[in-house]
Amino acid sequence: MQPLIRPTEARQRIDAHLPAIPTITCPLDKCAGRVLREAITADRPLPPFNRAMMDGYALRSADIGSVEAFTVTVQAPAGTAAQTIGAQPGNCAEIMTGAVVPCDADCVVPYEVTDKDPDGRIRLRTPSEHRAGNCIHYLGSDHAAGTVLLPANVRLGRRELAIAATCGHAELQVTKIPAVSIISTGDELVDVAATPAAHQIRRSNDLSIETALTNAQLHAKERIHLPDDAAISKQRLALLIQANTFLIISGGISMGQKDYIPGTLDELGLRNHFHGVKQKPGKPFGFWSNDHCAVFTLPGNPLSALTALHHYVIPAIQTAMGAPAARSMHRVQLTEPAKARDDITVFMPIQLMENNQARPHPAQNSGDQASILATDGYIELPPTPQQVYPAGSAFQFHPWL
Amino acid sequence: MQPLIRPTEARQRIDAHLPAIPTITCPLDKCAGRVLREAITADRPLPPFNRAMMDGYALRSADIGSVEAFTVTVQAPAGTAAQTIGAQPGNCAEIMTGAVVPCDADCVVPYEVTDKDPDGRIRLRTPSEHRAGNCIHYLGSDHAAGTVLLPANVRLGRRELAIAATCGHAELQVTKIPAVSIISTGDELVDVAATPAAHQIRRSNDLSIETALTNAQLHAKERIHLPDDAAISKQRLALLIQANTFLIISGGISMGQKDYIPGTLDELGLRNHFHGVKQKPGKPFGFWSNDHCAVFTLPGNPLSALTALHHYVIPAIQTAMGAPAARSMHRVQLTEPAKARDDITVFMPIQLMENNQARPHPAQNSGDQASILATDGYIELPPTPQQVYPAGSAFQFHPWL
Repeated sequence: MQPLIRPTEARQRIDAHLPAIPTITCPLDKCAGRVLREAITADRPLPPFNRAMMDGYALRSADIGSVEAFTVTVQAPAGTAAQTIGAQPGNCAEIMTGAVVPCDADCVVPYEVTDKDPDGRIRLRTPSEHRAGNCIHYLGSDHAAGTVLLPANVRLGRRELAIAATCGHAELQVTKIPAVSIISTGDELVDVAATPAAHQIRRSNDLSIETALTNAQLHAKERIHLPDDAAISKQRLALLIQANTFLIISGGISMGQKDYIPGTLDELGLRNHFHGVKQKPGKPFGFWSNDHCAVFTLPGNPLSALTALHHYVIPAIQTAMGAPAARSMHRVQLTEPAKARDDITVFMPIQLMENNQARPHPAQNSGDQASILATDGYIELPPTPQQVYPAGSAFQFHPWL
Repeated sequence: MQPLIRPTEARQRIDAHLPAIPTITCPLDKCAGRVLREAITADRPLPPFNRAMMDGYALRSADIGSVEAFTVTVQAPAGTAAQTIGAQPGNCAEIMTGAVVPCDADCVVPYEVTDKDPDGRIRLRTPSEHRAGNCIHYLGSDHAAGTVLLPANVRLGRRELAIAATCGHAELQVTKIPAVSIISTGDELVDVAATPAAHQIRRSNDLSIETALTNAQLHAKERIHLPDDAAISKQRLALLIQANTFLIISGGISMGQKDYIPGTLDELGLRNHFHGVKQKPGKPFGFWSNDHCAVFTLPGNPLSALTALHHYVIPAIQTAMGAPAARSMHRVQLTEPAKARDDITVFMPIQLMENNQARPHPAQNSGDQASILATDGYIELPPTPQQVYPAGSAFQFHPWL
């Protein structure tokens, strides 16, 4: 392994060597979670007409003091073109929410504050309360035509898709979802359906990484298990590097004699940007790349793989896709002291408690998955000469995906 | 509309009338986001053998003081059965992370703190630091065989799937994903690809609701638009109620003359549990059901539909699936006073700021989607005689999906 670098330096080196990902045209209803690559502007004023905000009667406010009751001259359901109530004082339209307010009316009075005479004429219960403009959502009052409603490079969530729909975009320019494959290594690992011998364990990191990618609205193309064999690894990795934009490899990257991965990546002509970070867990984390593929090497034990995936890999893929950096706005305070180090960063799993409190769950060893289960995410503890952060110290919370 | 009820009462009435959803057997790699309906126990001790936690040398701690250097007698890569180093003092195994520690060794010394003599013998740099048990993850030290690792009714996230894989469950008993269809109404609405006339707007709620369901790891079977026509609505709704476990209807539910939905649901034999809640936005929200289908009626304007979806509909579907109630652990403080009411609950959209601060974004009208965009979720402001909550008041944050 090379000299260890700090976590911030690791992130910078990754960001400086990410592959380019093309923009594609995508149907709107397949765009959820993708990154928008064009600006979306209002194609017409919003709202596009003077819109009734309540069910009731559209009338002229000037008539309110001068007539005793109102006469319905027209029905104005939503979805019909603009109408008129007519010049006669006391005329009104019966109008529905979402309908166009007649051009010669300027006030909508909700059903709830009216009474109907036996002859069908409408009386207002509290005439003095209704003014011009009441319950009317005026044309263009939210946004003028041409206003940029969504800038490029936002992530398309539920709200953004609704705006794109409102503006008539049946298709959008978005970043292509890059091909990501997940590779597990280790001759001690057997398939989940197999009965392991005493010295074997079942594979779980690959499924775990795939699920986290799915939760981040990314997509794993395939999960592949490589034996601890240098020749086979080289042959398979050469093809996988050709076929993917990102590879996420877990295991086989440390100092063991069967840790063929780093040497194989070097031999395949990839450039190593670092191999080893001043952090716990996950010290042997590494990063290689060529022009079209970036390869992350994660330690094989679950907590180390999980932490590196959340802190480096998923943010890097999102950055390559053009998404803004995700920022946690949730700040938590330690319920009890958390052990840190004076030389390296500690990523501490924590359990969220009431009132933004966080209970540290230091892992006894990074292989125990069931203890990870009790935690909701992690905090980053920078090196400190005291080697501890006292109860009450505050940190940004990073949730597990 | 009936007498308005309070939000907590609305939730109770919904929970009391949810349809039953069957349990199915599902392949493990299709279980992400589902609700587990069986307990998962450790099928063998975890870890299942004395596992090396570092790459290095496995030796007898008792030999450390008595021999000058160690001799490698066996290679112990991960994935091979238990071996022995042999009785001769100073014997050791070269061992890899994840391998079985030889039964006659009791201590693993990492490569980093050793040196190799020209004759291949191994010297420890700091012999006094290595004790019995070092760098060994002992059989059963995390969990005994038979320990319940996952109780029934948990939601299957990344970590839970990894544990199920470790315990050999290639399939799991989970709740079936219920059939949910999304119905929009309103003659003013046209398709996203259409060019609307001056009095029309494009449909967006249906896509917005579908995306929120997807983000909640649910699934919308179809999106359907109904015209404001009583006969057609009745015919289509009868079939949709047959074919779905949940219907989410937006629009057509208020006091307008073309609001056929409530009457149609009554005519189709569904029982109404409430129609109208003491809340803003979303007062006309309602709930109907029969033995096998629950129908939520949401107001047509985007903020009202969004709020009802998050506060009632998605939690109800998750409850019906057997999932534990989701609880926000993020508490936020108002940056400025928030206007409330003395008679009804206000669901206030907020923008998250640094340090768990929240800026209220009172909607000028509930039809403006672009102003929703600036917000990250909502807080619930109970009725208060003061009709305002001062800056600094704290509330649980509910994120938009």
